[in-house]
Amino acid sequence: MFGRFSDRPLVLPEDVRPFDDRFEVVGVFNPGVTEFDGEILLLLRVAVRPKQDDHFLRVPMFRKGKIEILQLDKSQLDCSDERVAVEKGKRFLTSMSYFQIATSKDGIHFKIEEGRTILPRDELEEYGIEDPRIVRVNGKYYILYSAISECGICVKSLVTEDFIHYKELGAILHPDNKDAVLFPEQIGGKYYMLHRPSTSEFGNPEIWLAESEDLIHWGKHRRVAGIRAGMWDGLRVGSSGVPIRTERGWLVVYHGADVLNGYSLGALLLDAEEPWKVLGRSEEPFMRPELECERKGFFNNVVFACGGIVRADKLIIYYGAADKYVCGGEIKIQSIMEYLQ
Amino acid sequence: MFGRFSDRPLVLPEDVRPFDDRFEVVGVFNPGVTEFDGEILLLLRVAVRPKQDDHFLRVPMFRKGKIEILQLDKSQLDCSDERVAVEKGKRFLTSMSYFQIATSKDGIHFKIEEGRTILPRDELEEYGIEDPRIVRVNGKYYILYSAISECGICVKSLVTEDFIHYKELGAILHPDNKDAVLFPEQIGGKYYMLHRPSTSEFGNPEIWLAESEDLIHWGKHRRVAGIRAGMWDGLRVGSSGVPIRTERGWLVVYHGADVLNGYSLGALLLDAEEPWKVLGRSEEPFMRPELECERKGFFNNVVFACGGIVRADKLIIYYGAADKYVCGGEIKIQSIMEYLQ
Repeated sequence: MFGRFSDRPLVLPEDVRPFDDRFEVVGVFNPGVTEFDGEILLLLRVAVRPKQDDHFLRVPMFRKGKIEILQLDKSQLDCSDERVAVEKGKRFLTSMSYFQIATSKDGIHFKIEEGRTILPRDELEEYGIEDPRIVRVNGKYYILYSAISECGICVKSLVTEDFIHYKELGAILHPDNKDAVLFPEQIGGKYYMLHRPSTSEFGNPEIWLAESEDLIHWGKHRRVAGIRAGMWDGLRVGSSGVPIRTERGWLVVYHGADVLNGYSLGALLLDAEEPWKVLGRSEEPFMRPELECERKGFFNNVVFACGGIVRADKLIIYYGAADKYVCGGEIKIQSIMEYLQ
Repeated sequence: MFGRFSDRPLVLPEDVRPFDDRFEVVGVFNPGVTEFDGEILLLLRVAVRPKQDDHFLRVPMFRKGKIEILQLDKSQLDCSDERVAVEKGKRFLTSMSYFQIATSKDGIHFKIEEGRTILPRDELEEYGIEDPRIVRVNGKYYILYSAISECGICVKSLVTEDFIHYKELGAILHPDNKDAVLFPEQIGGKYYMLHRPSTSEFGNPEIWLAESEDLIHWGKHRRVAGIRAGMWDGLRVGSSGVPIRTERGWLVVYHGADVLNGYSLGALLLDAEEPWKVLGRSEEPFMRPELECERKGFFNNVVFACGGIVRADKLIIYYGAADKYVCGGEIKIQSIMEYLQ
């Protein structure tokens, strides 16, 4: 059983100051997670939107080297999805996300590290950066994240040793792709990554695997796990945290969305040496939205994890609740295994 | 000016015997092109469909190691696009493509090489393989092509030295992607490839560039050339043939589709050392569908090239006409340059 640390979020939007006073923070969620310098480090996804007035919808956009605010005429807009404004067929995101570091000694109380942000920096990040996954490989921390722009949604990578200086490794996956996560070690002399392409005609949003020799260039793409019609993961799936090496194979927590767009967490078990082979999969999720803060927020009925930490026989998961809050909890690894078919 | 070799196709469907007598050939088009063993070698895209009867629509599919014929109840189908049959939301292609070698000494008369085919072989090729581009790099011939399946459209790669034995390099780009073509030599110590992702939400079908050290693993994806609303390439663009090194930079022939889905050919000029920089682009195509066989076929109003051959100051292009025929012609490279803005 997944045991939540609290029935309240660990981090709320009001805990975080926006990077710029022209904005307000509307969500703090889907954090990347790692251990650094004896503490738990979260790379929070902070969503901000411009302060509004009555006449225009103000939307953020990175252009020409800085974050600008565009004013859209409300009478011309389709805002049926609160996350998106559509003006004459052109889509704008109503909020923009970036990353901010938070640290904790006890794993419950987090200190927001003022000024330690990663902001959008290029044309592939026009509409922001989202859902970071942090994996420690060979002593360095690789941050894979979704970059959103007019060009589509692609996966970019940063590497750091200190969470102060970041080196850009570029777009490692072309659009559309998101939910990419590295394996923490080589398997048979290769690096591997799970990723989640979205397709436009044939195909569904499913989990794929790619192979690399240098963590920068990727190939040998294979589909690993599809959606399952009528089940908790019938609409969309994507890897959540770092794959965990167990005696039975690689345990991968993943999110599934059902036809009502509710997001839950389950797991895959992949072969230890041939990680494109699925040995087991959760018939039911081990965790669904239950708390008030998971059921009502910016986008309702979502629990969405980008990372976790193994402590002894348990997996600690920090997750986004309803695209608005950070929550946390833990579950025995053996207990996740019991959900596998 | 582009000079066609003939106002009739060079290769027609009736010239090619299907790989199996249960099928009929409905198109021979979009050939990969190279020079091999003193001859011009085309890797034809051959489209076949099962012989039909009155009651069912018979569609081809690669499953469980072989090419099968499925029977669909016509009364349940949406066939408004002749290329696709939709049954209860599930899409089937009405034809399946594979590759066949044709050779020519004079570049006009082609011999279809019986039995020298490349057929679909795995689950990513369920609905066939399409639009091969052949590039000779370091003495080996790399064939990049689109693989179509329920999983989406991805780019796979084969390498050969003799066009008899082929080595699979796997899916080098995840779905959705097509129109991938290698540069014939390294630039600044790296290999490069142009490709064309399709996106599902933001983004358009546009030309991107990727970088590699081994031609198998790819990264550093960058957008190079977008669509241009209202112009001949306002709906969709994709690289056609092998980039040609010129004194002014890399000349890349590409196809553009306009809002009426008519396909024409134009060119990009990319920087010699930094091929992600566009130095020039055709304001108008140097070639549009004009001949009867280019205007009427399986999919009308299409000229679509996958390759060409440079001979002295000319580019010879073999191209697909209306998704049904192979045609050919030539144009002075200087003449293509004059279209560039």
